[in-house]
Amino acid sequence: MSTFANVANFNGQVPRIDPDNAAMLLIDHQSGLFQTVKDMPMTELRANAITLAKVASLAKIPVITTASVPQGPNGPLIPEIHEAAPHAKYVARKGEINAWDNPEFVKAVEATGKKQLIIAGTITSVCMAFPSISAVSAGYQVFAVIDASGTYSKMAQEITLSRIMQAGVVPMDTAAVCSEVQRTWNRPDAQQWAEAYSAVFPHYQLLIESYLKAQQVAKENEQLDSAR
Amino acid sequence: MSTFANVANFNGQVPRIDPDNAAMLLIDHQSGLFQTVKDMPMTELRANAITLAKVASLAKIPVITTASVPQGPNGPLIPEIHEAAPHAKYVARKGEINAWDNPEFVKAVEATGKKQLIIAGTITSVCMAFPSISAVSAGYQVFAVIDASGTYSKMAQEITLSRIMQAGVVPMDTAAVCSEVQRTWNRPDAQQWAEAYSAVFPHYQLLIESYLKAQQVAKENEQLDSAR
Amino acid sequence: MSTFANVANFNGQVPRIDPDNAAMLLIDHQSGLFQTVKDMPMTELRANAITLAKVASLAKIPVITTASVPQGPNGPLIPEIHEAAPHAKYVARKGEINAWDNPEFVKAVEATGKKQLIIAGTITSVCMAFPSISAVSAGYQVFAVIDASGTYSKMAQEITLSRIMQAGVVPMDTAAVCSEVQRTWNRPDAQQWAEAYSAVFPHYQLLIESYLKAQQVAKENEQLDSAR
Amino acid sequence: MSTFANVANFNGQVPRIDPDNAAMLLIDHQSGLFQTVKDMPMTELRANAITLAKVASLAKIPVITTASVPQGPNGPLIPEIHEAAPHAKYVARKGEINAWDNPEFVKAVEATGKKQLIIAGTITSVCMAFPSISAVSAGYQVFAVIDASGTYSKMAQEITLSRIMQAGVVPMDTAAVCSEVQRTWNRPDAQQWAEAYSAVFPHYQLLIESYLKAQQVAKENEQLDSAR
Amino acid sequence: MSTFANVANFNGQVPRIDPDNAAMLLIDHQSGLFQTVKDMPMTELRANAITLAKVASLAKIPVITTASVPQGPNGPLIPEIHEAAPHAKYVARKGEINAWDNPEFVKAVEATGKKQLIIAGTITSVCMAFPSISAVSAGYQVFAVIDASGTYSKMAQEITLSRIMQAGVVPMDTAAVCSEVQRTWNRPDAQQWAEAYSAVFPHYQLLIESYLKAQQVAKENEQLDSAR
Amino acid sequence: MSTFANVANFNGQVPRIDPDNAAMLLIDHQSGLFQTVKDMPMTELRANAITLAKVASLAKIPVITTASVPQGPNGPLIPEIHEAAPHAKYVARKGEINAWDNPEFVKAVEATGKKQLIIAGTITSVCMAFPSISAVSAGYQVFAVIDASGTYSKMAQEITLSRIMQAGVVPMDTAAVCSEVQRTWNRPDAQQWAEAYSAVFPHYQLLIESYLKAQQVAKENEQLDSAR
Amino acid sequence: MSTFANVANFNGQVPRIDPDNAAMLLIDHQSGLFQTVKDMPMTELRANAITLAKVASLAKIPVITTASVPQGPNGPLIPEIHEAAPHAKYVARKGEINAWDNPEFVKAVEATGKKQLIIAGTITSVCMAFPSISAVSAGYQVFAVIDASGTYSKMAQEITLSRIMQAGVVPMDTAAVCSEVQRTWNRPDAQQWAEAYSAVFPHYQLLIESYLKAQQVAKENEQLDSAR
Amino acid sequence: MSTFANVANFNGQVPRIDPDNAAMLLIDHQSGLFQTVKDMPMTELRANAITLAKVASLAKIPVITTASVPQGPNGPLIPEIHEAAPHAKYVARKGEINAWDNPEFVKAVEATGKKQLIIAGTITSVCMAFPSISAVSAGYQVFAVIDASGTYSKMAQEITLSRIMQAGVVPMDTAAVCSEVQRTWNRPDAQQWAEAYSAVFPHYQLLIESYLKAQQVAKENEQLDSAR
Repeated sequence: MSTFANVANFNGQVPRIDPDNAAMLLIDHQSGLFQTVKDMPMTELRANAITLAKVASLAKIPVITTASVPQGPNGPLIPEIHEAAPHAKYVARKGEINAWDNPEFVKAVEATGKKQLIIAGTITSVCMAFPSISAVSAGYQVFAVIDASGTYSKMAQEITLSRIMQAGVVPMDTAAVCSEVQRTWNRPDAQQWAEAYSAVFPHYQLLIESYLKAQQVAKENEQLDSAR
Repeated sequence: MSTFANVANFNGQVPRIDPDNAAMLLIDHQSGLFQTVKDMPMTELRANAITLAKVASLAKIPVITTASVPQGPNGPLIPEIHEAAPHAKYVARKGEINAWDNPEFVKAVEATGKKQLIIAGTITSVCMAFPSISAVSAGYQVFAVIDASGTYSKMAQEITLSRIMQAGVVPMDTAAVCSEVQRTWNRPDAQQWAEAYSAVFPHYQLLIESYLKAQQVAKENEQLDSAR
Repeated sequence: MSTFANVANFNGQVPRIDPDNAAMLLIDHQSGLFQTVKDMPMTELRANAITLAKVASLAKIPVITTASVPQGPNGPLIPEIHEAAPHAKYVARKGEINAWDNPEFVKAVEATGKKQLIIAGTITSVCMAFPSISAVSAGYQVFAVIDASGTYSKMAQEITLSRIMQAGVVPMDTAAVCSEVQRTWNRPDAQQWAEAYSAVFPHYQLLIESYLKAQQVAKENEQLDSAR
Repeated sequence: MSTFANVANFNGQVPRIDPDNAAMLLIDHQSGLFQTVKDMPMTELRANAITLAKVASLAKIPVITTASVPQGPNGPLIPEIHEAAPHAKYVARKGEINAWDNPEFVKAVEATGKKQLIIAGTITSVCMAFPSISAVSAGYQVFAVIDASGTYSKMAQEITLSRIMQAGVVPMDTAAVCSEVQRTWNRPDAQQWAEAYSAVFPHYQLLIESYLKAQQVAKENEQLDSAR
Repeated sequence: MSTFANVANFNGQVPRIDPDNAAMLLIDHQSGLFQTVKDMPMTELRANAITLAKVASLAKIPVITTASVPQGPNGPLIPEIHEAAPHAKYVARKGEINAWDNPEFVKAVEATGKKQLIIAGTITSVCMAFPSISAVSAGYQVFAVIDASGTYSKMAQEITLSRIMQAGVVPMDTAAVCSEVQRTWNRPDAQQWAEAYSAVFPHYQLLIESYLKAQQVAKENEQLDSAR
Repeated sequence: MSTFANVANFNGQVPRIDPDNAAMLLIDHQSGLFQTVKDMPMTELRANAITLAKVASLAKIPVITTASVPQGPNGPLIPEIHEAAPHAKYVARKGEINAWDNPEFVKAVEATGKKQLIIAGTITSVCMAFPSISAVSAGYQVFAVIDASGTYSKMAQEITLSRIMQAGVVPMDTAAVCSEVQRTWNRPDAQQWAEAYSAVFPHYQLLIESYLKAQQVAKENEQLDSAR
Repeated sequence: MSTFANVANFNGQVPRIDPDNAAMLLIDHQSGLFQTVKDMPMTELRANAITLAKVASLAKIPVITTASVPQGPNGPLIPEIHEAAPHAKYVARKGEINAWDNPEFVKAVEATGKKQLIIAGTITSVCMAFPSISAVSAGYQVFAVIDASGTYSKMAQEITLSRIMQAGVVPMDTAAVCSEVQRTWNRPDAQQWAEAYSAVFPHYQLLIESYLKAQQVAKENEQLDSAR
Repeated sequence: MSTFANVANFNGQVPRIDPDNAAMLLIDHQSGLFQTVKDMPMTELRANAITLAKVASLAKIPVITTASVPQGPNGPLIPEIHEAAPHAKYVARKGEINAWDNPEFVKAVEATGKKQLIIAGTITSVCMAFPSISAVSAGYQVFAVIDASGTYSKMAQEITLSRIMQAGVVPMDTAAVCSEVQRTWNRPDAQQWAEAYSAVFPHYQLLIESYLKAQQVAKENEQLDSAR
């Protein structure tokens, strides 16, 4: 077996995001559908999806969004995605469940000229999985962000992870996407990346707060209250 | 590696349900066996199995059912399956545990003329897994619906998911089957599909109720109680 | 300490529901609020609330319902409650959060002439707890049905159970309410009570199905499939 | 037994918050201590504590904060509390673990002139429980907000709930505090209260978003995408 | 408050089982009802109920059993209870849900001449709780064995624990009942008690096996396999 | 990819147990090691391992057992395995952790003349996984019984399942092994197989008890207690 | 009701540990019994029990230990308790399960001359609960440390918490005991107390490590690796 | 498919650690990052990482450590790793997130001359996964130790396990690494290995304590306390 044979369309190359050759697809992150998410806390899903949009902005990765009948019970797209990625392009579908079945959506993907797709969608087993598998078939290298997608049960999530793996999609978590895009802390916008991580790991915000206070105490020789 | 090599009998085609080429096998969904199900709430299993039958009716997919010694402690088939799929054909087995070991069952499958099989069964590791693996060996494209099957522990479910994946079966959850069969909301029977999903995602029913009320308030200019 | 001193307003009598002296208050079971329920599966909450309404009908217990601003995001009352208890009286509030702060609601309770109140409400810590504590203060014997109420976390549920206990409210689960009202199986409507329990214990429905089949096999001398 | 005998210092009155007679004590919500919280998601604790501060501002309830050696590993107070309640008064302690052992803290409480205290603190079994029990002894009516406090294990939380109940403290969850202070939706600042709840029940924010969209669709006769 | 005021009918005495003054009531441990138990593993419930019967035999405590319509879906009493306590007396009820509402049952209890009752029953909130509360009212000292009873949800169990505590019943676990009856290891039947505990704590059986082997190795100077 | 390429040494044949060509290896099921099992209830592990031994006896499958330094803290083999499979052969190792590193063990396997191995062992990631992978390398078809093996955390179990899958081992649960060996209920020893399953699914024993009673009531026209 | 009526023997005083008037009883913390603990991670139980011993040493609180047949399967006392509290007195019992039934044990308690007892024991419902209730009866003020005790199920722990509360025992967690004994950080041995807490909250050790590094970086102007 | 085709760079050889050809990489085990670990108890992660370092020392396996900006909020390396493996070489990175992107790190790996790499890192999906995949691409045989790595959610752990498996990395748990390196108990340093395991399985320490006491009782004919 050649190396990396289980991922589709990599031809032996390391299955790793190349920020210069990637587009991001954020599919059906809608207020109504979020009520059906039971495989993870909805607040974490919301924070992760928004973080992807922020990171795409920082790294200038093209973003395409779409929604499933947002005039009905599925509800509107959550507003923070377009706020965090003002460059995102929205494609309205005509009822197709698999976004890849909508020709305008595929055209928008092709227009980016990228060969790698970072995909998240709610619900995971449908809105994320169907276009991911279709994109593999169309020759793309696909990275699916499981924890920026949500579904109706932990079991449904596990089944979907298995199904997309079987199809050669690369599974990712949100933090891994951020780091694989960021590459290094030795860059001028490092502070903005640190803030992005705080949404994914909320305990990181505590670390920063404690760290700054500890340094201030050391620098200013502030006395301990218990020693006054 | 050629694309989609990890699924059996697809020969590079997208591993996706083709509603025109699929039959559904619902195996051993019996009242007694349901008492032994501990990997998921039995009520969700029951709702999911019934939903599969409904969806097969909507899409005119042939259904074959069978039961394991329903005269004994395993109990009768749950009645809703044949109610939801009146066209389903029941095959009595002669004690074989693997339904595929029963020649009449295999003959019934062959009589459908379909090459794709959507399979669910209780208990998962036996009644669903054994015929799924046998069907792969017989050249079928097999989709196993893990959350319309049930078993005695979460561990048993996880082991079975691994085993059938290894054999090239495509794992699915109930919602993904429904959506892959439905294809689009732009169809005259869309309302019946929406009702089918409410059994799988019960919070969707709440969304519909709230949505209709919100629209009614808007249209009728109904005053808020707190503003009277 | 006299016996039963920890319950309020019982004066040493057994703290047990007297179906002839009880009214039932079902408060704010609304489609929107149900989306915020995270302490128990919403489907079980919905089934339990409906079962209370059914049982009140069977036992001819007066029922009063109310809703919190059903024209807004809280959504409409779930329809099954009035369907199951057609005799229920709905009281519209004017924005008061504690239903007991609404004079018409209190008047409706007084009009029943009963001294015991069976109370369920969503969310538990507010819509159920506030009127329960107020009713104790007004001299009623109060039974709070915790699992026909729902709230935003298991922790909130536990805190509320503690708070109402401290106030002398009697905590009940739905099954205990049904049984304490039913009293005996030796009654002409026994079959309707059995059906009511199946919604609270879904495995009971399986028992009934298996039982009937086992009896049929015995009576009709049906042969086991595996012995053919 | 007289009614409401299990709560301390109420003398038969309903054990309910009187917003005109209450002060709020927010104790030791510090970045370092938050790292040790394992009985609930830290993000929910943080949101609940901030919500208490917001609600105190809306209702003009005096707030007193304090911290345990914020110059050391316990870390600084989280900044959002004073941001949400700019009128809060901070009292520095001299190492006392029980804030009530610090005379300036007690003096600050007395200066409010209130007889009811709403107390939250991290860690629950120490920073919240000790001053709560001491305040009961000093004659106050005490409401402890368990889910705006945090501790090192679910077991520690349960033990503390039991201990403070035994001492006659009234246990509350954050939503119950908000509602008992708010009293009614029929008030000019209702919208600000709705926003406060969204932090405690994040699914409520989804409800609002979906509600507004459903009304807009109804009012503007927006066509469904799937019907175009 | 006098000491031990929260337990009913103890009049200041230690609320502790007196094996010479206790009877045991084992209510509705039936095969069908056991299928509805979801608050604890049914196998542990079954082992605990049987252990109580064994311990009653060892200590010569009278046992009364009863069943709820064992001819219907509730199923027969599990056989091991009468096997383990051959001296147990079975009382058939006439459909009464609360066993205490059946006069023959109460007569059987009175015939024992005991003043303490150890009660377990399935389902907990009904079959155990109702007679426990009635027995308190009749002047008995009641010990309820929560984990030799079973019910349909953890929530139902917690509510019932709260309800019976409020009524002055003493809550016990199975191990505590065994030990409070046994009193000391310095008795001729100590080995039979040790075996009884192994059913409640299955890891204790492993300890005994390992202990005997360790002693055998020491006495027989058996060489370690790894040192051969 | 040829069919069934992900299992080792099957060469396109269905990866299914052939009872005539299989041997069973039960490795290190020792009282001390069982104390370290935290990924599943030890009682279920013990029942499953004993069931495998019973089933091997029923089907006349050779069994080989071994233990890791049973003279030390690991403790003795649990006695029920050799009781259930009196034909089992015990091989003492000389300290080797991987049983396959012990030449006498390999010789005992070869002496059976079988090409399929059913392997269970405690702890899973070591005592089961190491010989499974070695046996694959030696050309055997290997079935690993994950839930008749036990380890120190759920995480360790999941990692090991992944590792052995990657090596081409077929994962099985205990029920699947029983059924794949049994093949059909149409055999004279069917009753003994039914009893074996009751140890794996304890609720099945309840089904049998209820079934027999229901049939007895039907045949004997026994009156319901509630109708007397 | 007078204040603090639900705790036994406090006569209206704050139910708070007075380090000058307290003795600590550590009962049956034995290696074999620890194997049966399933209500909390055994490692946390062990750490908490050792911490209590350490804190008693720091505060010069007398400690009495005892064991239940340490020559048998229950195993020896864990050695760290006497290492951490070298002043502890060991009392051998003669088989009595309730330590308070052993006259020498009671004599040892009386010899301390203290009126408050801090009690932990394994298993919780027996070894901790029985002497706690007996000590209440003998007039002591009793503090039970639930998470420095361990038992066979979460349910058993919850039942025991309820039972001892009912008897007027004050429930405590380990951290609360430490803090109530320590009183203030303004003491010369503050550093030793901080170390003691790290065993109870392991994340506190991380805080200390990070804090010291943050201060060192600030003081030494160490450059960030990412800025080199 | 040739045997062992799913692991990278093994060319048909058994995918097993060869202690003479392996190096160990311990990446970013830092006090701050440990605060963000939520997929397993941090104390177990810490114990497992330290055990790997100990085992590398016992087996003379080279160890390379590195940290991510230890001057910032990520905090310092936990000190026990270099204490347990004094021969470990620390490589400072210049901000690169993937350690393999740092040329000095790769050079240090190459300098060991080994072809197998045992890798653990925090956080798992980034600090462990990125260099593991890169090392596969560079031709190494890679063993990833999932439970000596830690990350922000169970879901992130599961996703990462899937991703590295797909890349041909061999997943291991800490115990499996220890045993695969140790090979046999028949070695002079067996006692040191036993101590290492006690950190991974804390119940093993209890077994040793109980075993030694049981042997002492047997050898010294110590009388049972209950028989005195």
